[in-house]
Amino acid sequence: MLSIGIDIGGTKILGATVDSQGQVVDKKKVKSPAQDSNAMVEVVSALINELSEEAGEIEAVGVAAAGFIDAAQSTVLYAPNLSWRNEPLRARLEERVGRPVVIENDANAAGWAEFKFGSAKDYGSMMMLTLGTGVGGAVVADGNLMRGGFGIGGELGHISVVDEGLPCGCGRLGCVEQYASGTALLREANLLADSSDPLGARLRELRDEAGSLSGHEAYQAVQERDPGTLQLVQRAAEHLAVAMGSLVAVLDPEVFVIGGGLSELGESILGPIRSAFESQLPAQGFRPVADVVLATHSNQAGVIGAADLARRSLGKL
Amino acid sequence: MLSIGIDIGGTKILGATVDSQGQVVDKKKVKSPAQDSNAMVEVVSALINELSEEAGEIEAVGVAAAGFIDAAQSTVLYAPNLSWRNEPLRARLEERVGRPVVIENDANAAGWAEFKFGSAKDYGSMMMLTLGTGVGGAVVADGNLMRGGFGIGGELGHISVVDEGLPCGCGRLGCVEQYASGTALLREANLLADSSDPLGARLRELRDEAGSLSGHEAYQAVQERDPGTLQLVQRAAEHLAVAMGSLVAVLDPEVFVIGGGLSELGESILGPIRSAFESQLPAQGFRPVADVVLATHSNQAGVIGAADLARRSLGKL
Repeated sequence: MLSIGIDIGGTKILGATVDSQGQVVDKKKVKSPAQDSNAMVEVVSALINELSEEAGEIEAVGVAAAGFIDAAQSTVLYAPNLSWRNEPLRARLEERVGRPVVIENDANAAGWAEFKFGSAKDYGSMMMLTLGTGVGGAVVADGNLMRGGFGIGGELGHISVVDEGLPCGCGRLGCVEQYASGTALLREANLLADSSDPLGARLRELRDEAGSLSGHEAYQAVQERDPGTLQLVQRAAEHLAVAMGSLVAVLDPEVFVIGGGLSELGESILGPIRSAFESQLPAQGFRPVADVVLATHSNQAGVIGAADLARRSLGKL
Repeated sequence: MLSIGIDIGGTKILGATVDSQGQVVDKKKVKSPAQDSNAMVEVVSALINELSEEAGEIEAVGVAAAGFIDAAQSTVLYAPNLSWRNEPLRARLEERVGRPVVIENDANAAGWAEFKFGSAKDYGSMMMLTLGTGVGGAVVADGNLMRGGFGIGGELGHISVVDEGLPCGCGRLGCVEQYASGTALLREANLLADSSDPLGARLRELRDEAGSLSGHEAYQAVQERDPGTLQLVQRAAEHLAVAMGSLVAVLDPEVFVIGGGLSELGESILGPIRSAFESQLPAQGFRPVADVVLATHSNQAGVIGAADLARRSLGKL
């Protein structure tokens, strides 16, 4: 039986019809009216109805959004990029689509897709770390997605790794997101290019050529094995590994899945993360070592996970 | 129906018969042959058999020990104070007592007692932080004890809160155990007493009178509202709060339960922890705030939790 998954982003909304094996059988992308919450409800409802009509019979509908979802999976408590505050999204959507809808945090949905159908499908417990604009996360323990007591768990980018460190948008200091996101890597790349350090020479060249440093230039510098850029990747990996060591202390996952834009660096970032992680293990040598692997799904993880979690949630009703 | 709980410590072993409401109906304490693993198995088996004979019918037996227990709850992988390495404790005990035995980490057992019968009994999710010789912990999410994918979760003392901080026995740097345990507080109290800082005056006096600073003197100084000692408690609370803020990001518990020797300071330590915690919340103001409460059970939490977890585990067979 098919389910529908929707992934609401700041610039676009992806909708998909997904089968029980996590395969996308149909998809549609529409522009996100991010700053207009009424328009958002209309656009998402229309997308669900359209996919539903085309699919025929539908089992469940899951909607993922970047924000804090309450424990009842009904209300978006806060969505920094989507102008939502205490938005009763579930009720508003159900009214318009005439069937039950399940709301999920987008990183949790993407993590679930990796656990159920992707890189972690052979494990019983997992933590996912998504290194993109920020650092996102998802936690699966004993085969269950851990949403948190109030619904706002899995925000793994906000583990503090540097005391009195860089200020984070969340209000804390030294969050790992400030050191191991794509944004942080580009910030450090620009600082290195700005400096007179010989290690910044290649980044300076690339910036002069392109006008500015983006993920594209950073990726190129890493492919060229530029020592300055590799050092920045190494430092990002070391900060991430501090958080991973602490996560082992808390929930001792069998595998870490690394996703997001930075994961496109492949082994160039996975290698440094793995070795830094092993040195951050509490009681190293006396415990099994978790695997560290790259994510399988990319942009579609959110819709696949949302669709499957919705199916699973109905099964529990 | 009654269950038996055993709590193996470095100096003593406590055994108890516990009813289904978490009430201890019988208990026995024996000396711990900590450095002799064969003797330990004999002593614990004898204790179980003795309690069992006195109780008549017994439903389940749970044994808690300070160490890493594998995910199958059969083998003690590592017990720093008990000379165990890959000890098949479950099989050895079952052979001697002729009934199923469940092995648990002692901090997990104590945390479960707080969740089921103590300070967190009205919540669905909890984290316990035990501030004693070290910092121990336990994690309950969605009503279940989280043992970790390999069985070694809930080691909350080994969350790193100071980058490049104090070395910990676990091999990491800056673990919260090095800043917020009773041991850490006494270390700082001695450093302050050693200094010429006027804030150390009262601690110097107390040390001169007693010969050395112990928990007793620190407790007295706090009761007297000695500014130097209160400042040390404040700093310990601030470090603990960094870890608590990160734990909210990971699993968003509804309540933190504070136990262990330092919790005997009551509101003098709970107040500072609570206010420091609120300033460490990620996205403060946009999420519910977890309660922070003192533990209810003290020395008996381990046996009560072990007995109840064993009963629960049998129910799942």
